[in-house]
This record gives sequence, structure tokens and C-alpha cells, in this order.
Amino acid sequence: MSPATPPKSIQWVGGVDGHVLMIDQTRLPTELAMIQCRDTETMWEAIKHLRVRGAPAIGIAAAMGTVLGVRDYGGSDRHGFLSYLDQICDYLGTSRPTGVNLFWALDRMRQHARSTETDDIGALKLALLDEAKRIRDEDAAMCRAIGKYGEPLIRPDCGVLTHCNAGGLATAEYGTALAPLYTAHELGRPFCVYVGETRPLLQGSRLTAWELQQAGIEVTVLCDSMAGALMKQGRVNLVITGADRIAANGDVANKIGTYSLAVLARAHGIPFYVASPSSSFDPSISDGSGIPIEERDPDEVRCGFGRLTTPPDVACYCPAFDVTPADLIRGIVTERGLIQPVNGEIIAEMLGD
Amino acid sequence: MSPATPPKSIQWVGGVDGHVLMIDQTRLPTELAMIQCRDTETMWEAIKHLRVRGAPAIGIAAAMGTVLGVRDYGGSDRHGFLSYLDQICDYLGTSRPTGVNLFWALDRMRQHARSTETDDIGALKLALLDEAKRIRDEDAAMCRAIGKYGEPLIRPDCGVLTHCNAGGLATAEYGTALAPLYTAHELGRPFCVYVGETRPLLQGSRLTAWELQQAGIEVTVLCDSMAGALMKQGRVNLVITGADRIAANGDVANKIGTYSLAVLARAHGIPFYVASPSSSFDPSISDGSGIPIEERDPDEVRCGFGRLTTPPDVACYCPAFDVTPADLIRGIVTERGLIQPVNGEIIAEMLGD
Repeated sequence: MSPATPPKSIQWVGGVDGHVLMIDQTRLPTELAMIQCRDTETMWEAIKHLRVRGAPAIGIAAAMGTVLGVRDYGGSDRHGFLSYLDQICDYLGTSRPTGVNLFWALDRMRQHARSTETDDIGALKLALLDEAKRIRDEDAAMCRAIGKYGEPLIRPDCGVLTHCNAGGLATAEYGTALAPLYTAHELGRPFCVYVGETRPLLQGSRLTAWELQQAGIEVTVLCDSMAGALMKQGRVNLVITGADRIAANGDVANKIGTYSLAVLARAHGIPFYVASPSSSFDPSISDGSGIPIEERDPDEVRCGFGRLTTPPDVACYCPAFDVTPADLIRGIVTERGLIQPVNGEIIAEMLGD
Repeated sequence: MSPATPPKSIQWVGGVDGHVLMIDQTRLPTELAMIQCRDTETMWEAIKHLRVRGAPAIGIAAAMGTVLGVRDYGGSDRHGFLSYLDQICDYLGTSRPTGVNLFWALDRMRQHARSTETDDIGALKLALLDEAKRIRDEDAAMCRAIGKYGEPLIRPDCGVLTHCNAGGLATAEYGTALAPLYTAHELGRPFCVYVGETRPLLQGSRLTAWELQQAGIEVTVLCDSMAGALMKQGRVNLVITGADRIAANGDVANKIGTYSLAVLARAHGIPFYVASPSSSFDPSISDGSGIPIEERDPDEVRCGFGRLTTPPDVACYCPAFDVTPADLIRGIVTERGLIQPVNGEIIAEMLGD
């Protein structure tokens, strides 16, 4: 039996008159519902309401959303077309205004249209579709490369602990932290994965558990508080997570709870790895103390699941991320190779031109 | 303004014709509803459905439940009365058949009736009420003593992290881990408490946050995964939890997540204390490896918030407890004094006759 492949979060179906097919992530894990986007408004709504989530996946969705939009341009004037594209990009940019990848992808689409030297509107539309697909394919290739460099970390019959969702759902496919797992699985290597549910928003239990299960990888969900006990039992041989931002010295900001796992891993002699594209490195930030940590709505703690589980007005601590210092990280897997040991010199060398 | 007192989980109101007044813990934290128990059946239902929970509180409830029951005995025969009492005890024992304190309290009531040398049925009923009140008062005194010995640990303006509910709701009043906090608060000392929500059953966010708030103590709820980040920020000066069982060498079994907190505390140089009555020590178990760990229903992880948050059939790891080794514990506060350092010799000395 050949292993199942990880789910594809977002695809373009057909030619320039085609549509976008996406997994509705808000319906997971209880239901696999697909959304067919045939216009920009549907895509805007899908991004806004987190039907598509994960920075790379949002970038791809936005790029494809512009293609859906410009199809309505009935004129034959290049200048008018570019203005029309700008309006669509501005509109899509209002869906999740803090998303870096969203704006990066929209800017890339604008630039690509401008640098495509033709007055043929049909050719411009096709060029944009090609660019959107290229954004998707580049992301997929990057995930594959992370998988290739990270796969040797997954030893036969090992137990791997991960956190949150740095998986195929957040990217074109394969994901970042999960890419080495999918790659090792394709090679037929047996191993099992543990995933913390990742309070407050439960991306681990809702999304990672689902996509690993879909791919036929053995997965067990635990509450975040259970990681220490699991490690003490000797069931975890490797911890691997994604990264939201990495400072020049290798300090990693990632989903809240990552730092606790890194400390616990160190105390149990378990290697802790991060897998993330080189675009996550921010050389302008010298160390983790310079990474701003978003504090989120206390209601995510108070009533994360439609039911109040604290006194109504109680104070809550609700940071979105924490920072894991480089010295707790055994290595960082990127699409350019494995950074190990993790320090400023090796990072600069890997990222240098 | 004098500080508010911790809530009383269970009280007897009036004389032998009175009733039991209890907080319905299933309605917390959104509603403070009281239950008036006037018969054994109501008490059985309350214990069964966790309206009263926490081993000491269940013991008190069961003892008071026998008093409610024997009032119906209309005969004048001592032997008949004792049989009737046995039936009531057997019935109450079916409410939560694994509860050690439940059976301990019921046995104590049976023994007390047998050792009360009178044929006057009214006097026997009164003797049982006195014994039930005594069980309650002894528990309250024990909690107060823990508070007295533990209170010096709460330094002015410190941040204290606790886990689960080892509070007034679980006992007659004051609780075990929370007793030093209530005592320090009564002395007017300012400090703040952080409590992990304590997945899967959320006793921290539902119960501990509520009762500290009721007592006027500053409390902040966090997801269990956030403890490491909070410690790294320097906001935690002390961690204190209860214990379910303590081995002869000082290894402590307590709510799942306690061990992770102890490891994190050690990594941040924060003292980790346990507060628990001497009855929690089990000298027959030499170390923590001998403490059986109950694995609970995976649905507590899968749908702990009244809604499925994982794929329906995913495997879950759901231990009820973990074991914290003695060498991570700075001290154990008991009603007999502070055990520090924590080792077999000091424990034997403290518990010895």
C-alpha cells in the first residue's frame, strides 16, 4: 500500500476560466468540506473567516483571488486593467490586514502585471494565473526541500512531538514542521507523532491531527500539559515545530507553548528542532527580545469553544507566541539546508547571498 | 476593608432536623447556585454528578448524608438503627465507588454509632450529626494548619502559580495548596495568583479562578502551555500545587501537568512547593514509580468543551495524573509542618508516631 499524500489546502482547477478549490479549515476536523471560489468576494470571505489560514496558504489564496477578480475586466485598455487589478488587490488586502504574506503576494501580482509587456488583456490575465500558480508551486517546492533536509531526523520507530499546525493546511502542501514527517512517511519509515492540542485555538488537535491522519501517519493528541509526562515515559525522541519569526541569532518566535516544550525537551535530553523557510528569518532583529509578542483577546482563554470556562470577568494571560532561545534549539531545517548548531554566524552564512 | 473569606463548599445548617447546604460545583464558574440537601437521595445524586467534588469535601458530604438518612428511622431498636445506618452507608458508597475518602468517612460514621453506647435513638442520631460536623471541622482545622505553615512562603508582592483546584471547594474550606494563599491574604499581604486552566477538565479556570476571585485575591488564568513564557518573564516567584498521593521518598502524584510545571520551575530557578495533608502520604509506596496512573476517557481530550475538537476517532493520551520526583520539590507543606528538604528520612520523621 503506498502511503497517502498530505492534503492539498488550495489548488487552481482548469484554465483561466477555472476556479479555486480549497479546504474549508473552519469545518475541520469533523468535516472535510471543499470551497469552490469563482469570484473575489468568495475568496475575501474565505480569508477573512479563516476558511483558509496559515501565512503561505493565505498568500496563495490572495494571489489566486486576484485572478478570479480580473476576469471580470471587460475592457481592452492595459492601463484600465492595471487600475482594476489594483482595486482588487486593495480589496483583498482588507481581508486580514496584518498578514505579511497576504501583502507580499498581492504586491507580487501587481508587479508581475506591470512587468508583463503586452497590451493583450487575455495574455495579461493568463500571465497573472501563471504567476499565482508559480507562487503556489514555489511554496510547495520550498516545503518539499524542508522535507528533504529534515527527513533524516525522523529515525525509524521514533516518537515525534509537534505543536500547533505547521503543516500542509498552512501551506501549498507538506507544510514546514510536518514536511520532514511526510517525507519520511513516503519513504516508508515507521514512526508515530504526538501533537499537543495547542490551546487556546487548538490548531494541533483540530488541524495537525486531522492532516496527519489523512496521510495515514499514526498520530496521538494530548493536552499541552501532558507533554512533560509523555517525555518522562521515554515516548518522545524528537520535538519539531515551525516558526513565526527567527531573529539573527537564532531565537525563534512561535506559537505559545513552544518555549515550554523546548525547556522540557532539554530537561529530558530530547533534541528540539525548528523547521521553517529562510523567509522567516528577520536579520533586522538581533535576538528574541526584539520580537514583538501579540497579546490576544482574553476571550480565547475564557470561552474558546463557545462556552464560558472561567468566571466571566476574570483576567487572562493570552500571548499568541513565545520566544525559544537559540541555545535550546538543536537545529533549524530550512529549504536551503540544516542550520546546526544554531548561532548567528551559521545563520548568516546559510542566508548570505 | 477586611478581606473576603474563601467560600464554604459544604455546611450543616440547624440541628438534627436541619439540612446540608452545598455549592453546586457543576454550575460554576458562571453561577453560584446552592443545593439544599434534606435527604440521602439528593446527597447521593450530588456526589454522583460531581455537584460536590474534591476528596475531603466528598467525605464530609457522605458523612452528612448518613445523618440525613438515619432521621427517617422511626423505630426504637438500637440494632435496627445500626442496620438501617449500614444500608444508608452502602447506598451512599455506590455514588462514587472509587473514592477513598468517601469510604473512610462512611466507615467512621458506622464505627461512631457502634461505639456510642446508648439505646436512645435520638441520642444516636445526634451523635452522628456531631461526628459528621467533627469530620468537617477536622478538615477545616487541617486546612488552616497547612495555611499557617505555608503562609510564610507567600512573599509580599510575589506571583504564585498554581494548578488544578486544591482549594476551598475541594475541602471544608481553605483547601490545601490554596490555604497558604488565603492565610497570607487574611494577613493583608499583597500578591497575585496565576492559575493554569488545567486541561482536560479545567478545574483551574472553572473552580480555582472562581474561588480566589470570590475571596478578593487577584487572579489571572492562563492556558497550561503558557506557564513557561510566564516564568521566563519573571512573573512567577513560587509554584504551589496539591497532591493526590505522595510516596515514602517524597515523589508526588498530582493532576496531569504538575510535573511539567515542576521541570519549568527548576529551569527558571523558581521554588516548587506541594501542600497536602499528611494523610496523602502512602508509606507503602517507596517511590513514584509505584503509584498507579489512571488513564482517563479519551473523550475528555477529544471533546472537553462540549464540542468535538479533534478528528472523531483519533487516539488520545489522557493520563489523570503525573508524578513529580522529590528532587524537583523544594518543600511539602502539611498540617504538621513544612517538610524541607524533601526526602524519605525527613518524611518518616514528620509522619512518625
